[in-house]
Formats: sequence, C-alpha cells, structure tokens
Amino acid sequence: MQLAERLKNLGTETAFAVSGAAAAWAAKGHKVYPFHLGDINLPTPSNIVEAANDAIHAGYTTYCPGAGIPELRAVLADDVGSKRGVTYSAEQVSIQPGGKPVIGKFLAAVMNPGDEVLYPNPGYPIYESQIEYLGGVAVPYGYVETSEGFDLYMDAIRQAITPRTRVLIYNNYQNPTGAQSSRQEMEELAELAVRHDLWVLSDDAYYEMRYSGEPLSIVNLPGMQERTVILYTCSKRFAMTGWRLGAAIGPNEVIAAINKMNTNAESCTTHFIQRAMVDAIQGDTSGPDAILAELRARRDAAVAGLNAIDGISIKAPESTFYLFPNVTKIMERKGISDVNQLMDEALTQANVSFCTRKHFGRPVAGEKNHYIRLAYSGIDVPSIQEGLAALKQYFEA
Amino acid sequence: MQLAERLKNLGTETAFAVSGAAAAWAAKGHKVYPFHLGDINLPTPSNIVEAANDAIHAGYTTYCPGAGIPELRAVLADDVGSKRGVTYSAEQVSIQPGGKPVIGKFLAAVMNPGDEVLYPNPGYPIYESQIEYLGGVAVPYGYVETSEGFDLYMDAIRQAITPRTRVLIYNNYQNPTGAQSSRQEMEELAELAVRHDLWVLSDDAYYEMRYSGEPLSIVNLPGMQERTVILYTCSKRFAMTGWRLGAAIGPNEVIAAINKMNTNAESCTTHFIQRAMVDAIQGDTSGPDAILAELRARRDAAVAGLNAIDGISIKAPESTFYLFPNVTKIMERKGISDVNQLMDEALTQANVSFCTRKHFGRPVAGEKNHYIRLAYSGIDVPSIQEGLAALKQYFEA
Repeated sequence: MQLAERLKNLGTETAFAVSGAAAAWAAKGHKVYPFHLGDINLPTPSNIVEAANDAIHAGYTTYCPGAGIPELRAVLADDVGSKRGVTYSAEQVSIQPGGKPVIGKFLAAVMNPGDEVLYPNPGYPIYESQIEYLGGVAVPYGYVETSEGFDLYMDAIRQAITPRTRVLIYNNYQNPTGAQSSRQEMEELAELAVRHDLWVLSDDAYYEMRYSGEPLSIVNLPGMQERTVILYTCSKRFAMTGWRLGAAIGPNEVIAAINKMNTNAESCTTHFIQRAMVDAIQGDTSGPDAILAELRARRDAAVAGLNAIDGISIKAPESTFYLFPNVTKIMERKGISDVNQLMDEALTQANVSFCTRKHFGRPVAGEKNHYIRLAYSGIDVPSIQEGLAALKQYFEA
Repeated sequence: MQLAERLKNLGTETAFAVSGAAAAWAAKGHKVYPFHLGDINLPTPSNIVEAANDAIHAGYTTYCPGAGIPELRAVLADDVGSKRGVTYSAEQVSIQPGGKPVIGKFLAAVMNPGDEVLYPNPGYPIYESQIEYLGGVAVPYGYVETSEGFDLYMDAIRQAITPRTRVLIYNNYQNPTGAQSSRQEMEELAELAVRHDLWVLSDDAYYEMRYSGEPLSIVNLPGMQERTVILYTCSKRFAMTGWRLGAAIGPNEVIAAINKMNTNAESCTTHFIQRAMVDAIQGDTSGPDAILAELRARRDAAVAGLNAIDGISIKAPESTFYLFPNVTKIMERKGISDVNQLMDEALTQANVSFCTRKHFGRPVAGEKNHYIRLAYSGIDVPSIQEGLAALKQYFEA
C-alpha cells in the first residue's frame, strides 16, 4: 500500500546514526568518550522533581487547556519578557511538549508553500526538514569564521533575499557553532527583517546557557517583537530534556493559531509538569546555577584539550554547550577529504565520538573548511580530558 | 502581517466552549453537574505514580528514542496484539504524547491532498479537522439508531466510496454514541476496506473501557492488520489523560514514517512516563479495575436517571463513558428547534452541563433527530443522581 507523497520531503536528524555507531562500538567493549550528544547527563534539580511529584498527588493528572495552564503562561510571559527587556502577556505564550514543536508549528502558521525561508546552515537540521516538509523553499545562510568565533555571513543573507522571502530563522547562541551576534550584527539583521517584512523565529534554546556576558535578544530591537516568535525550552537550563516542556512566545495572532494546532495535535502538554514549572521558574535557582557551573568547567576543559592539539585553535564561546573546531588542517595532514571519515576513524582509533558539519544541514556549494561538533553536555571533566588526549594522539598521528 | 493559508482549513473542538460556559455559570455561585467532560476525575493508580517517581530518580529524565523506549514498544506490542488476537513486533509500535497525535500523523503518512476519507459523524471532531487541514476531502458517515444502540449506516458508507476514497476512520466503541459493531457489521466494513484497498485508522481509545462482553478488533479480521493503524492511549484505562501517553501501532512502513514525524515534531515523548508504563501495563491491574468498576456504577446511575425522564429511552452501552440520548421528543414538547438552545437552558435552569451532537462534526443534511452527549467520567454517582433529577424537572416542564 502506498504512503503519502509529502513524506518524500520529510528530513530527519542524521546525528542519531552517530549515537548508533558509538553504542555499537561501546557494545564491543570499548570505553567511548561521548562528545556527540546534545543531551545533558545531569539530574533535574530536586526542587522540580519534588514539585512534579506534589502536582501528581494534588491531582494535576487530568487534561488542561491546549494553550497551557494559565499560571505557567503568565510566569513564562514575565520571565521571558523581563530577561529580554520587553513585555509579554500570558496570552502570548503557548505551552509545548518541548522547544522543537515550535519550529514546525511556527512555520505552519506563517509560511505558505513556495515561500522562501532563510535558515542557518550549519544549523539545527530540523529547520531544513520542516521548511521542505511544509512546502517551503529552504534558503541556507552560513557563518564566517573569525578569530573570535563565527559571524553571520551578512552579505550572503542580503543577496539571498527575494520578493518570495517570507521567514527568517535565527538561532543566536547557536547550535552547532556557538556563534553569537554582536549588537551591530543583530541590528543589521533586524533592519533587514523589518525592511523586507519577514516573520522571524528566534530559536532561544541556549539563551540562558551563558557562562559570561549579557545576552541580547532580537525581540528587544525596534520593530521586531511584533514579527518574532521565540522558541523557549526548559530542556537545557533545568536539565529536563526528557520531560518535554517548552513554549512558543510571540504575537497574539500567531500564538492563537499555534494554540489551535495544539488542540489538533496533542490536546495539551503534560499537566503536572506544567504545574511544577510554575514554582521552578519563580523559585530557587541553585539547581540551574549548579548546572551552568558544571557546564562551564566542562567547556574550559574541552577548549583547553582541543587547543592542545596541533592544528586546532578555538576560542571559548560564551554560551551553548557546543564547540565547532575547524579541522581542515588536521584533515590535510592526514590526507582525509571527507570529514565523516575523520569521525569514523576517531571513534575506532581514539574511542572519541562526535558529530560533523554534515549533521547540521546539507553542505553549501563552495564550502572550503571542515568542522566537527563536540558537545560537552553529556561527558564529565575527567572524561573530557582523557578523551581529548586520545583525540590529540589520533589527530597528530 | 499575514498568516498562512492552511490555517483556514484547521478546525478545533468546539466542546471547549461548553466547559467555558459551565465554568462561567459556576463562577456565579451555581453548583454545576458536569456531564460535558470527556476527562476522568479519578486519580491515576498509585503504582504508576510510584513507578514514574522511581524512573525520575533513576535518571530517566534525558532524551530517549523518538520512536519510544524499546521496552515500552515491546510491552505494548505484546499487550495490544494479545488483546486483539494478532501479533505485533516492537518495531510496529510508535510511542506518542497521547492518542490524539496518531490522528494527524496517520493521515499525513497515508493521505494525499484530494484523497477522500470516510469518517464517523457524529464522531471525534479532530478527524474532520485534520483531514481538511491536510488537504483531504472529509466524507462523513453516520449511524442508525436501533433499540439496542447505534448501527453503522452501512448503505451510506457503500454509496460514499469513490475511486478517490483512500482512508477509512473507524472508531468502534464510539465517542459520542457508545456504538459498537456486531461481528457481522465489522466483517462487512472490513470487506469494503479490503475490496477498495483502503487504509484504516482504528481509533481504539475505548477498546479496554468495557463493562461487559468481549471486545473485537478489526485488525483481527482477514486482510486488515496490514492496512490498519491502531490509535492506542493510556489516558482512559489508567486515568492518565493529563500525562499524555499513547501509541500508533500498525504496518512497519507507516510506523517508520510516523517515527520520522516524531523526530521532527517533538523529539520524543516524556521519558520517565514511558519507563513507568512498562511496569504498569505488565503489573498490578487493581488500579484500572477499580476505575472501570467506578465508571460502571456511574453508567448504571446515569442510564437509570435518563430513562426516568419522560421521552428518553436509552440502553446502557457496554463500553466508553458516554451516553447519547435522543432528545427529539423533549425538544418537540418544549418547542425548541436548536439542540444547543436546549443545552443552554439546561445549564441555567437545571445546572446540568452537557455537549450536543453539534460538537461532534458538522451535522449532515437530512438529520431529523436531535441528540445530546453526556459523559459520566467526570462526575460521581450522587451528583449524577442529583443532576439528572434536576434535568428531569427541566426536560419534563
């Protein structure tokens, strides 16, 4: 029996194959150093666990409104707004089972088939998949490596805009590069969005995963709040990846449409988890603070370990839990032309598992440099040090 | 700024307006008898709550596979298969955040724009909404009232099938009618599905909500398992509506497509809840047994209360927690032509809240009878008795 045509346009996250290869190698008795995971191997703060348990016992096990419970919508409106210097009402918050649902629902709400969508590439691969699944035209934009990290390739963005461009996806504090915009860069981007009347998805998954410096949100710039939907998630800050709680936050009419999609798609997000988060967001921040402190220590260990490798030079990003080193010199030295061959060999020769640029969107014509992505959210400091020492041996051999 | 065109085809559940009206009436100081809720006002069995808590403390707070954890997929394959007299493998189970996501994902996987989909009307309103949102043609089929309950209007189904018909949605043990097929009726329906090579969604939300008799599943009939996807939910049997856990179970290629949608839509379903359900489905059934016993007592009280009303005659359905009495005589006696006027008056004159036929799909041309839907899942026996006594007074006045 035949399946629907639309499935041909549905992509996926190819990084799961990396997990599979790492698990298969571990199953053969090898200790694997897992730098491929964008997951967090730290427990959810105990006050959240207790609040969830209390909520279950208090009977928050029934359906709740598709848009989310009013208390959580109000708390998130305050929290997200105040951390970005703007004001949101509770009606501008739509609770979701994670941050990821915001990508597809936002695109479904604002993009018609044939519309062009600018999206970061390398970037989170679900952008590309959802744009094309919903009939849009995925128009990638890239980054330029500098001594400080990565800048948006602004000239390419300007040139890519056509009369059919309708949406811009922007992931400041970026996965996989760790890139963050200067105020000037963000102002240029916002000016383009206003001039071309674009809808904007601000993927703020890592907005609060900061080790230094103050964050800046594009919704804070003139003309932006009314055209921007924020992707918010509890996954990273609270080490709650497997709980599935997030939100879409933006203009009333888009949020109303997304609420209607919730009613159609999943009725509501888990009730007692929403209840628990009301207290967690307002309450004791020692749990999230400790998570950030641990991740900072891991970042510093990982950056030091990478910079000890001949041919790699990387600056510590101020946010996210990813490093995106340029491995072009390593590959030239080793005579390897496919970065995924480097990945495969690193697993079997150094027991180190990581993703590559190829897991973050289709490579763009003309890319000259090769990159790998190391996540330090699922590996502790001693293992980071051991693993990168092994990687150094393999890379320098 | 403009929203996407596809939103014009997205429907919703209008029953939420009934909840709103009931809440507004209660806020004025009235005691409302809530027969409108399809939710369950009973606690989730304690062994499930404890298992969820254990799972959180054991660290099942991280991401898990988009298709669901292997253990739960295996347990559900066994449980769902054995209760239907067929065999499923774990690979044929895709875990979902509730039963509802199966509707949209199944249709997206098998239906092309322009395809015709047969669906029950009156029926769960999300069928109609998702068919049209995804570009299909929603072709309703109805029921014929008998002295025993409701039969499928088989002649109408036969006549509605065209070369463009591609999918049949079948909700045996039905919301809102409580209808259940005889073996002969189900065989006729299966024979049509095979002859016309239709995909079938078997919405089994109430398959295990049985007070007497043995259930029969259409997947048990020849030629059906390979063309049918089962909508399974933990919501009803385990009083877990707000936890959001369900599954799609069916042919490998459809399930593989749905798994890919999971990766795009929500990453995975809450990890520790999946872990808890592995034990719950295999373990102590005293919790679900007690839930069923309480619902049976409510059913008997509600049927007795309705039959005490002059002009209403209803037989107790063997499953679901809904009653769908014909109120045509009541309306004629009261000179009311719109069943929603009867609903409004029942709230303000008898403090009784219920839904009507109009909340379960667009009424079909030529419908002569009027029906209301009473759910007894959210109201205890004494309140059922009080509420229906008040309703009797209003209906007979």
